[in-house]
Amino acid sequence: MATLNDIAARLGISKSTVSKGLSNASDVSEDLRKKIMEVAAEMGYSGRRTQKRLCVLVENMGYTEPNQFGYELIAGFTQMASAEGWVVDAVPYTKERQVHETYRDFMARGGYQGAFLLGFSLVDPWMQGEFQTVQIPTVLYDNRIPENPFMASIGCDCRGGMEAAVRHLYGQGHRRIGLLFSALDSYIVKERYNAFFSAMEKCGLEVDQDLIGLGYYVAETTRKYLPKFVERGATAILCSDDSRALAAYTECCDRRLRVPEDVSIIGFDDLPISAYMNPPLTTIRQNRLALGKCGYYALSCLLNGVDIDSILLRAPLVVRGSTGPAGAQREAS
Amino acid sequence: MATLNDIAARLGISKSTVSKGLSNASDVSEDLRKKIMEVAAEMGYSGRRTQKRLCVLVENMGYTEPNQFGYELIAGFTQMASAEGWVVDAVPYTKERQVHETYRDFMARGGYQGAFLLGFSLVDPWMQGEFQTVQIPTVLYDNRIPENPFMASIGCDCRGGMEAAVRHLYGQGHRRIGLLFSALDSYIVKERYNAFFSAMEKCGLEVDQDLIGLGYYVAETTRKYLPKFVERGATAILCSDDSRALAAYTECCDRRLRVPEDVSIIGFDDLPISAYMNPPLTTIRQNRLALGKCGYYALSCLLNGVDIDSILLRAPLVVRGSTGPAGAQREAS
Repeated sequence: MATLNDIAARLGISKSTVSKGLSNASDVSEDLRKKIMEVAAEMGYSGRRTQKRLCVLVENMGYTEPNQFGYELIAGFTQMASAEGWVVDAVPYTKERQVHETYRDFMARGGYQGAFLLGFSLVDPWMQGEFQTVQIPTVLYDNRIPENPFMASIGCDCRGGMEAAVRHLYGQGHRRIGLLFSALDSYIVKERYNAFFSAMEKCGLEVDQDLIGLGYYVAETTRKYLPKFVERGATAILCSDDSRALAAYTECCDRRLRVPEDVSIIGFDDLPISAYMNPPLTTIRQNRLALGKCGYYALSCLLNGVDIDSILLRAPLVVRGSTGPAGAQREAS
Repeated sequence: MATLNDIAARLGISKSTVSKGLSNASDVSEDLRKKIMEVAAEMGYSGRRTQKRLCVLVENMGYTEPNQFGYELIAGFTQMASAEGWVVDAVPYTKERQVHETYRDFMARGGYQGAFLLGFSLVDPWMQGEFQTVQIPTVLYDNRIPENPFMASIGCDCRGGMEAAVRHLYGQGHRRIGLLFSALDSYIVKERYNAFFSAMEKCGLEVDQDLIGLGYYVAETTRKYLPKFVERGATAILCSDDSRALAAYTECCDRRLRVPEDVSIIGFDDLPISAYMNPPLTTIRQNRLALGKCGYYALSCLLNGVDIDSILLRAPLVVRGSTGPAGAQREAS
């Protein structure tokens, strides 16, 4: 198959000029563009513009290692998309770049027909601006833009998961439950936060504002709040994600608090490592491989003109060793 | 391919005995059953028990004519399922039969591996009982059993649709909006009812309890409430479905009220006939073909062990001739 270099050599021009000509750039004359197109067609060039291409855009989420949250999301998505002939690129993208490039330009530049977006927060420039109206089929994981019919959502039913977690703790006698959460600048953290309140209400438990700790930085927030929670009588702590639960283990270790005898801990996500923590972490599971597959399904709906709004998976509670009866401490000592 | 009759002829027994033998019925001896199975295998019989079979169970919903609500739901479902080698039966089923047969028995009798359920109400025996715990992959349209991970839901985002409808009326100057709804014995009617209240609140409008009319029987309810609504100053009426909107047209005609000059009317569903009513009906659309396809997708997730909770499609407002500016009456007369 002919390459850009082959076309450039034949025409005696640079590769970048060929590329510009093929992508309709304005700084290539109409005559030269036509010549480039003709030679490309004659030489059988089939560039990225003729491929079916999708993009997974990742903002602030690890995805290159199997233990990172995004890994299986992308694997599931790519597995389904590849089976239907799509080429998928995973592209990390920062908040800063969003200021300098529009989403539309980014997608056009890559020749992408649709995108699956991971990890964007509510304060991201594209989230606040372009996503409200842009007409590019896009699936958001754990985000929602209800105003724009080109944007579908996928995620887990965090209400069901949170309710199962609070009921589990309630059944083990816990009444004072602390909340160790990430900052409320993301759609999904807010959802989980609200889910906690409604789960507590369903169990007839009161939320004590002194048992709520929010913050962006994992270790700092944990260090600041966990000891206070225990001092104020919390016997269990619910975390917004498994990383925070891991930090809580460390903090407990430093303070000579035993998990779960002194304090029960529940995470959210079920990262691969969570089953191997000591003790193994009780957590609310997100089936990331299935979520990635559903992400592709939702995108293929949008690409085929089906107005999909959202797909939710269940988020089951996986009970392991980090939760136990409240008051086990006193009995043990 | 051998048939039941071929096997019966070879063994010199009745066709029904062969059928019983193949389906493990208790009134066929173990010896005879074995003989039947052997002959069936030898003759290459591949009966329904070896087929991939799914069922669309329909309670109280028309589906045999293109203008009926269930028609495209079943068409979309069957189209997708057939492409993957499934045989699909559409089976009407009454409340009464649910008392005399369990869901498990019904499914086993038909050799079905999963089902798509249309039209069941909250007071149906299976909804109140067996569906809470049964372990058969089942997708419910416009119903939800959050406790059972074998049950997934599909439907439309009625909150988004209702909000678009109320905003549309608000934009045309309507402030007194009546609600003509079906009885609240179904999950989805309750959802739409709640969606109305939250949409009114978002628009800063107060709900007047005197402008709410609920009832199972379409014509009677409409006759009872519509004139009262207009008397009490309602300039627009929101209906829980297009059939009710059609009844409202008839009632307006009888009372010499013009649509939309005297009263604007909005339906829900967008039945095929709604575009051809006079005037064409403004309504909240449910894309039933896409819903049927998503129903199959959700079921195939469950059949493959993916814990899907729900799929929602968008419910866009389709603006036609049955809505107009409030107060057009006075200007026109």
